[in-house]
Amino acid sequence: MKDMLGREELIPVEKALELLLKHMPFKRPVGVKLPVDMSYKMILSKDVISPEDLPSFNRSTVDGFAVNSADTFGATENLPAYLTVTSEILMGGKPESAVKKGESARIATGGMLPEGADAVVMLEHTQQIDEKMIEVVKPVSPGGNVIQAGEDAKRDECILNRGRRLRPQDIGALAGLGITDVWVYERPKVSIISTGDEIVPADKPVEPGQVRDINSYTLSGLISDAGGIPLKKGIFSDSYDIIKEVVENSLSDSNMVLITGGSSVGAKDMTSKVINDLGRPGVLFHGVSIKPGKPIIGGVIDNIPVFGLPGHPAAVNVCFEVFIRPVLEIQSGLDENRSDREKRIVKARITKNISSSPGREEHIGVFFEERNGELWAVPLLGKSGLITTLTRADGTAVIPLRKLGVQEGEIVEVRLF
Amino acid sequence: MKDMLGREELIPVEKALELLLKHMPFKRPVGVKLPVDMSYKMILSKDVISPEDLPSFNRSTVDGFAVNSADTFGATENLPAYLTVTSEILMGGKPESAVKKGESARIATGGMLPEGADAVVMLEHTQQIDEKMIEVVKPVSPGGNVIQAGEDAKRDECILNRGRRLRPQDIGALAGLGITDVWVYERPKVSIISTGDEIVPADKPVEPGQVRDINSYTLSGLISDAGGIPLKKGIFSDSYDIIKEVVENSLSDSNMVLITGGSSVGAKDMTSKVINDLGRPGVLFHGVSIKPGKPIIGGVIDNIPVFGLPGHPAAVNVCFEVFIRPVLEIQSGLDENRSDREKRIVKARITKNISSSPGREEHIGVFFEERNGELWAVPLLGKSGLITTLTRADGTAVIPLRKLGVQEGEIVEVRLF
Repeated sequence: MKDMLGREELIPVEKALELLLKHMPFKRPVGVKLPVDMSYKMILSKDVISPEDLPSFNRSTVDGFAVNSADTFGATENLPAYLTVTSEILMGGKPESAVKKGESARIATGGMLPEGADAVVMLEHTQQIDEKMIEVVKPVSPGGNVIQAGEDAKRDECILNRGRRLRPQDIGALAGLGITDVWVYERPKVSIISTGDEIVPADKPVEPGQVRDINSYTLSGLISDAGGIPLKKGIFSDSYDIIKEVVENSLSDSNMVLITGGSSVGAKDMTSKVINDLGRPGVLFHGVSIKPGKPIIGGVIDNIPVFGLPGHPAAVNVCFEVFIRPVLEIQSGLDENRSDREKRIVKARITKNISSSPGREEHIGVFFEERNGELWAVPLLGKSGLITTLTRADGTAVIPLRKLGVQEGEIVEVRLF
Repeated sequence: MKDMLGREELIPVEKALELLLKHMPFKRPVGVKLPVDMSYKMILSKDVISPEDLPSFNRSTVDGFAVNSADTFGATENLPAYLTVTSEILMGGKPESAVKKGESARIATGGMLPEGADAVVMLEHTQQIDEKMIEVVKPVSPGGNVIQAGEDAKRDECILNRGRRLRPQDIGALAGLGITDVWVYERPKVSIISTGDEIVPADKPVEPGQVRDINSYTLSGLISDAGGIPLKKGIFSDSYDIIKEVVENSLSDSNMVLITGGSSVGAKDMTSKVINDLGRPGVLFHGVSIKPGKPIIGGVIDNIPVFGLPGHPAAVNVCFEVFIRPVLEIQSGLDENRSDREKRIVKARITKNISSSPGREEHIGVFFEERNGELWAVPLLGKSGLITTLTRADGTAVIPLRKLGVQEGEIVEVRLF
């Protein structure tokens, strides 16, 4: 979009995201069947249905004695109930005999309740009289200290929904149900194309005017962190034909394409032209009211999201969190309601007045300090090209679009790194 | 410790951690030199010293014109400064000529300042008169829009300290300095020994009284998440000789040993005996005022931390977060001030009254709900043996030792999963 003077008009962050999401579905990774112990942090591509009841038997949750609860009603320290101990339940075994009225069976946590027993009296609420007799000093209600068969999960019940990222306890639950393989989406592949005539590889010496490739390293970490696989395509000069070829190439082996740098005057327009020339709908926005990150280009080529990122390391970080991570999460198959992004935001008081231009969302690197038990965010007011500002920061404080700045002591939202 | 009645006395969480940390240093993983792109999330074993100045030259942070700042003093829209454009700085190259008084050189973001220039006027603050002449409508101060050589990092300066976990932007900073290999601690190896006569592998059918191994799967995920390598040693029956052999074996190839389950009556004492018989100082505590997780055993054998964990999946999760993760972080070489644990805690209002016994720290599974823009924690009051309670929870709310419970609407700390 251009304004009346023919300049590219900046659009707000929400509008930019909306334009991107309008072109869903994006090219999604395929679903594959993986062993559960290789699927930690992967996203389910199918609902998981319980193949059986869990537990498969009535199970004690304490160490004690399996009883008829009715035998313990009214029992107190002064007026205990007396029960004979007729057996001991072995762990991992089926009880050999039933518990009759007036009887009990010694049972450990996790043991299987014998027939006739409907509750377990905790060891602490009994006194051993002799080898064959206990006193019960506190009543237990029916079902007390017992997990009923199927109480944890019922056969044919959906226990984990498609679109969930598997956590350690989810993997444990699958194992508990005997599910050793699970359908998950493959990790999305994200191509990183570094451009700029001034960029040299990290292992090469720099000549005057040259800088080393920083952003492909930072982006690789961020992509891995978001569950993707980074594909570093290399460093290319700012030439239309070269960039077009590597982007075209990347569209065939990736779910998303990131083009970083291109900071020479004509390079940004060149990146736009490449995106527009390679497919539909092409560039969706070029320039967003955000600092740092204003010159970001967002587009879609035949269902593959493509971003042109400014060369500043700080801008790359902000653009990743604001635009790329949300799109990558959706593309990965993650249920929108299960995004972790909200959890990465904490509230803190800012230690300094910060002014901001109206109509621009501003992201400022901060580190945390505790003051009288409260969390304070100390702004790192370095120039945006500095990479050590980013290494010293714990996260970025966000000054929203409609605010003119924040006052010392005001509460801000900080997105954690 | 035993009380007057000969029962094991419960100790508070802080005391248990203190007893463990008193036996530092723990057996630490060795430091290894790794390529930076393989060291994401690893912990630095040596300080990183900058081998050179970054940037290596004065660098423009904007698109515009390199100038003598003095030539722009007092420039306004009505009274602009006129400068001749004598050259264009090519990206990645050394400027061919100096900028003299009254002159300027076209420069892009990231370009190298030519000799004679001390600032860059932003493109937006200029008007092109003709090919060789610009108007500057706003003054720029000396050093304006320039990152000075060495401003980001100085040669011989320590830029990243030992004990830091490497984040994406840290890897980027290393690459920017030409550092392609870095000294990091290897990931600590943690043995997981599952015990219990009732436990069968996840891929086997269950007979009455048997349950499948859940905890070794959950623990593997938690250990990976904390940066460790899980070594699943298998499922063993509750026999002193067998457990002793596998623990002894694990002490030789691990940095930490976890023994889970052993829920039959004698099993806990057996685990204690194994730990005490294998080395010094042996068991440090047996029983902590925490729910779930009360029967936890903590010890150290010849600098290797060893834990005996209760069999309940919920207890395993809580014990991991409260005891194992902090010890593993320290053992991994992580600087204590750089732990992420604080960041995993958020505040939320509880939706129900919850009672708790005094003198016991209680951890309750909760999921989040947003109500009028505020975060509320909804308790999942399932029995502690239920694994689906854990799959539905977003985290655990903590009721501290000295509280008798919490009231509806009260703010609690929730440890995120």
